[in-house]
Amino acid sequence: MILSALVTSVGINTALCFIFLILYTILRNRPSNAALYLPRLVAEGNLREGNVLGLRKCLSSFSWVKRAWEATEAELLENSGLDAVVFMRIFVFELRVFQFATIIGIFILLPFNYMGNQLDIDFTDLANKSLETFSISNVDDGSNRLWIHFTAVYIFTAVVCYLLYSEYDDIAALRISSFYSSKPQPKQFTVLVRSIPVTSEKTFSDSVGSFFSECYPSTYLSHSNEADKVYKGLVHLKSEVSAQKIFNREGCFGIFGQKSEPVDQYDKDVEDVERNMSAEQFSLIGEAVPAAFVSFKSRFSAAIVSHLQQGVNPTDWQTEPAPDPQDVYWPFFSASFITRWMCSVIVIFACLIITILFLVPVFIAQGLTNLTQLETMLPFLSGILRMKIVTQVVTGYLPSLILEIFLVLVPPVMIVLSSMQGHVALSQIEKSACIKMLWFTIWNIFFANVLSGSALYRLGIILEPKKFTELLAVSVPGQASFFIAYVVTSGWTVIFCIELFRLKFLIFRILKGALCCCSNEDEFISNPYHKQIPRILFFSLLGIIYFFLSPLILPFVMIFYGLGYIIYRNQLLNVYIPKYETGGKFWPVVHDATIVFLILMHVIAIGVFAVKKVHFASTLTVPLPILTLLFNSYCQKRFLPSFKGYPAECLINKDRLDLNDPSISSFYERLATAYEDPAMEAGRDYLAGETSATTPLLRDVSEV
Amino acid sequence: MILSALVTSVGINTALCFIFLILYTILRNRPSNAALYLPRLVAEGNLREGNVLGLRKCLSSFSWVKRAWEATEAELLENSGLDAVVFMRIFVFELRVFQFATIIGIFILLPFNYMGNQLDIDFTDLANKSLETFSISNVDDGSNRLWIHFTAVYIFTAVVCYLLYSEYDDIAALRISSFYSSKPQPKQFTVLVRSIPVTSEKTFSDSVGSFFSECYPSTYLSHSNEADKVYKGLVHLKSEVSAQKIFNREGCFGIFGQKSEPVDQYDKDVEDVERNMSAEQFSLIGEAVPAAFVSFKSRFSAAIVSHLQQGVNPTDWQTEPAPDPQDVYWPFFSASFITRWMCSVIVIFACLIITILFLVPVFIAQGLTNLTQLETMLPFLSGILRMKIVTQVVTGYLPSLILEIFLVLVPPVMIVLSSMQGHVALSQIEKSACIKMLWFTIWNIFFANVLSGSALYRLGIILEPKKFTELLAVSVPGQASFFIAYVVTSGWTVIFCIELFRLKFLIFRILKGALCCCSNEDEFISNPYHKQIPRILFFSLLGIIYFFLSPLILPFVMIFYGLGYIIYRNQLLNVYIPKYETGGKFWPVVHDATIVFLILMHVIAIGVFAVKKVHFASTLTVPLPILTLLFNSYCQKRFLPSFKGYPAECLINKDRLDLNDPSISSFYERLATAYEDPAMEAGRDYLAGETSATTPLLRDVSEV
Repeated sequence: MILSALVTSVGINTALCFIFLILYTILRNRPSNAALYLPRLVAEGNLREGNVLGLRKCLSSFSWVKRAWEATEAELLENSGLDAVVFMRIFVFELRVFQFATIIGIFILLPFNYMGNQLDIDFTDLANKSLETFSISNVDDGSNRLWIHFTAVYIFTAVVCYLLYSEYDDIAALRISSFYSSKPQPKQFTVLVRSIPVTSEKTFSDSVGSFFSECYPSTYLSHSNEADKVYKGLVHLKSEVSAQKIFNREGCFGIFGQKSEPVDQYDKDVEDVERNMSAEQFSLIGEAVPAAFVSFKSRFSAAIVSHLQQGVNPTDWQTEPAPDPQDVYWPFFSASFITRWMCSVIVIFACLIITILFLVPVFIAQGLTNLTQLETMLPFLSGILRMKIVTQVVTGYLPSLILEIFLVLVPPVMIVLSSMQGHVALSQIEKSACIKMLWFTIWNIFFANVLSGSALYRLGIILEPKKFTELLAVSVPGQASFFIAYVVTSGWTVIFCIELFRLKFLIFRILKGALCCCSNEDEFISNPYHKQIPRILFFSLLGIIYFFLSPLILPFVMIFYGLGYIIYRNQLLNVYIPKYETGGKFWPVVHDATIVFLILMHVIAIGVFAVKKVHFASTLTVPLPILTLLFNSYCQKRFLPSFKGYPAECLINKDRLDLNDPSISSFYERLATAYEDPAMEAGRDYLAGETSATTPLLRDVSEV
Repeated sequence: MILSALVTSVGINTALCFIFLILYTILRNRPSNAALYLPRLVAEGNLREGNVLGLRKCLSSFSWVKRAWEATEAELLENSGLDAVVFMRIFVFELRVFQFATIIGIFILLPFNYMGNQLDIDFTDLANKSLETFSISNVDDGSNRLWIHFTAVYIFTAVVCYLLYSEYDDIAALRISSFYSSKPQPKQFTVLVRSIPVTSEKTFSDSVGSFFSECYPSTYLSHSNEADKVYKGLVHLKSEVSAQKIFNREGCFGIFGQKSEPVDQYDKDVEDVERNMSAEQFSLIGEAVPAAFVSFKSRFSAAIVSHLQQGVNPTDWQTEPAPDPQDVYWPFFSASFITRWMCSVIVIFACLIITILFLVPVFIAQGLTNLTQLETMLPFLSGILRMKIVTQVVTGYLPSLILEIFLVLVPPVMIVLSSMQGHVALSQIEKSACIKMLWFTIWNIFFANVLSGSALYRLGIILEPKKFTELLAVSVPGQASFFIAYVVTSGWTVIFCIELFRLKFLIFRILKGALCCCSNEDEFISNPYHKQIPRILFFSLLGIIYFFLSPLILPFVMIFYGLGYIIYRNQLLNVYIPKYETGGKFWPVVHDATIVFLILMHVIAIGVFAVKKVHFASTLTVPLPILTLLFNSYCQKRFLPSFKGYPAECLINKDRLDLNDPSISSFYERLATAYEDPAMEAGRDYLAGETSATTPLLRDVSEV
């Protein structure tokens, strides 16, 4: 790739970004768009008149950038919770890494690369210079200048490790302090108990009650385990009602439906279904399932129960910390140990299959970068394809666009897979999907691209370390242009476009209208971290790899990072409302991924030094990944336990503070019913006759 | 290798075994040998006159075999504890595996192997027939008979997995029942706390006291954390005294010493040292270290403290279940987290280096199997080496003897390494050494042997799965003779000889006399499981691999296993006294190793089917290792937690039973001083003036 093509690509993307920003600033200040662009403020009733300005002042009103930049961490913590702070910390961490990498890369490595004579290139025309002139590929074989790169790799690793350590330390401390400052929450006092053993004499509910009141007589409070079956029954009936409605109303899409059937008939059907439901519900309520939420009077007791094996058989009485009531994912609430285990095994295989299938779009995108191949396939385009601007757009922009479109499809698939894995909390599903997406991206975008160029026909090469290292060393610098310039900059542009204009939400609304489906719109106002973290991380981690290979790219990456930082700080303050918290548990994922990419960089460095015939440097780099792994192992011992639960000291102190709190007894009362599904409450009321038989039990969500 | 050589080898070894057994029976019944062969009975005062018979009745008195065979599991449990029962269970498990393998191997696989025509061998002379005639190598390429082997591998894996599961289940249940029937033990109520944070106001002892009495006011009992420094001081002074003594007494080995120095002078020196020591001790007692044994009033509280992270920083207030008082290994008692972590990292590297260095004796042993090479090296031996019997002994017996001698050196090295790893209990060191030995044996004996034949010069082959599988498929059946016939049978013979006649103990006594050293003889009466389990397991696991490769070997292996079973049942009832217990924690090690060998068998099977050109069978075998790993993962979830601690239900029940026990208050009193080092008690007494200044503080162990 030549320099001018990079500049074209970066130019197009930067221009697009600024157009988006201006458009956004204009659109967001129109009162009619507030619900779309500032849904959080609308939902909280905080939308002051002063925020909504006339079109005239719009262009000058970039105050949202200022506000987003100036918001303090404490403000963010209060507004959006710990997860949002950690999310922003990820940005800050990456920006710091790039800051250091850019200084070293541009002022030290780049001049030495440029002074090399390895590549035989015409030096008269700067615009048509290959990007590789600025990369390590241009340094002469066996040159002593490579020792500068060697030193840079060591120093860079040390700095990144230092930043990782201090960030981990900060976030761990933040986690504890936000726990201390939190109000009593049901999840802190509650444990999810599953696989309650079957006995002939007792119901599940009695078993739970007697087991925990016997083992923890002084702190056991209550339990609830009837929700699940009722929930399932309701879901079944809801779908029956919806299906009837869609079919009866106007036919599919409202286009070729027959309106002959009277509306009365539809109403009558719904009434029938509801009458059946109440009978079914009648039989369901009281029928318990082998799982329960068990609440205790202290956080410490709940922690003890969730950490210690309860029954003699480790697969009976399985305990885990309860999620927030609104975070509960009911379908696996009462699933047995073996079901969940088998589901997770199946999901792992499904992930493998999807990862392999995704190679197809990767190949298509790769094919587009090779124009001659495209001309052979579509000969009628050859005229257009020979135009210079078209060439640059097609080879530069199209492949990443295709990849982006396919990548947009992956997170929902990963969410579906994760939701089948047996998790009982939406936040667990999100985190699991996030990890899946991250590995998927690393594998399918990075490795598949590197390998497809030269050696995908023999996947076995991955298992031959020496050859693989050299393949990486040869392929990666050459692929630098494709990866960084295109994927990162245009990838960010697409993300900005989607995020700023809430495109996914608009598309969803259009689709919803067309298909008459009645899904929940709430999710577009809650934080979908699992979708954002993997991409943001992947783009930044590519920067780590290209640090010493091709430093020219770093400033561009940093600019887009800074833009992303502002925009996400804004989508967090004004758009998203956290529904539930993971308590900063995303940071260990980021830490691990960074370590993986550091080691990947070391492996490539070992390969590059070997290919460049500085074998001594290659050998001396070998301890670096080992040291990095040792650092990681130390961090895991030093910090990871703090992310798995809260220490006894904190729990006991917090419990003591509660003793002086007069509101705690009323909290205990609320706690006893916190883990009841709202649908079930309605069902209970219905049975108790509090709701009249004519009031529809099921609110039609699509009509809200 | 030819059949007659195998028969010779097995013959020699079986004959040796029976000679050993007869000799042992004669020797053990001589009253003067009782302390050597029946030390347990002597120590317990259970040696009745009736057991000691005249020489006449000796030969007919194989009653010890009967007694050893008839002892029930309950008897063994009472006599030698759970570890001994698990040790015997390992034998029983392996015997069951071999029983099944022998039936399938001899009656189904062997005839099909023998009927093959792949190997071009002279069929007229049975004695000179190669063992490979009976192995899978003899089955024709592409033959449908290989589907029988395919079926056998699947069935065999299923049976082994079933046996593993039921054994795991039984041992887990046994663990719980032996916990229920146990008397209150200090370790059940105690937690080891390390990395006590430094504060300027408080001593470590005060910190511990205030932290635990504040967090666990109702159940905290006491703590002790002064032992360590005193211990270190004493060890230092002990070695000073010993060194002076050895040097002063008669010179080294009592040969070239000068007796001119008067004995009075020596005694004066010792007195000086002891006076110094008392002063040093004076300054040491009261000086605390950042570690303590903290005792609680209930087992459940101790379990809570050892399972939950206590302080905000996970590397402060580190807790773990305390070992038995006599199991404590003091040197790492107060080591900081970072010291222990770095020690364990260093030990891992040391293990790797030793494993690589051990290849030298393996090569020497391998070289001996090649006689022409030996003749070139030592030409004067050529006459002798051409004799048939010498050939068979040198190629058959010598290599395994050399390996055996070197293998005897490895366990002490592994013990030293494990003791440097930061463990605080002797039993932990034993288990860790056991695991190290196991992997060492698997790697250095199995893989190094397989690879040395053809391809050790390119170790890289291990990382090329396809080639490696095929290399295994080609090499392993060919190496069957060497491994099974020699290593297993002669290995067992050497073990029997060492165990029956307590050779190690005799050698140790001789060395001790010669070197005037004063080590503890106690260890020769306590169970050294770490030395026995890896070998026993390794031999038996080789049987798993050869099951479908070369079934002829299986009956011989089974016979030696049966013998081992009786002899070890006897070395447990009459010889060894358990000093401490791991509570059956060796079983998960056995389980994991068996799974590894099953998978190794599957890999070899895949390779064999591919080499034999039955590619469909090869492909159909691929799911088997995956299924086995899934089975292993299920077992780990189902049983492993039970081996890491005791469930809350059991702890609470057991604690409640204690409430009615009148002796519990006196137990609490003893508990407060249970974790004081005996040396320190003496030191305390000394300081308190209870011991007169003339009484030597240090008992000279070598004079006992």
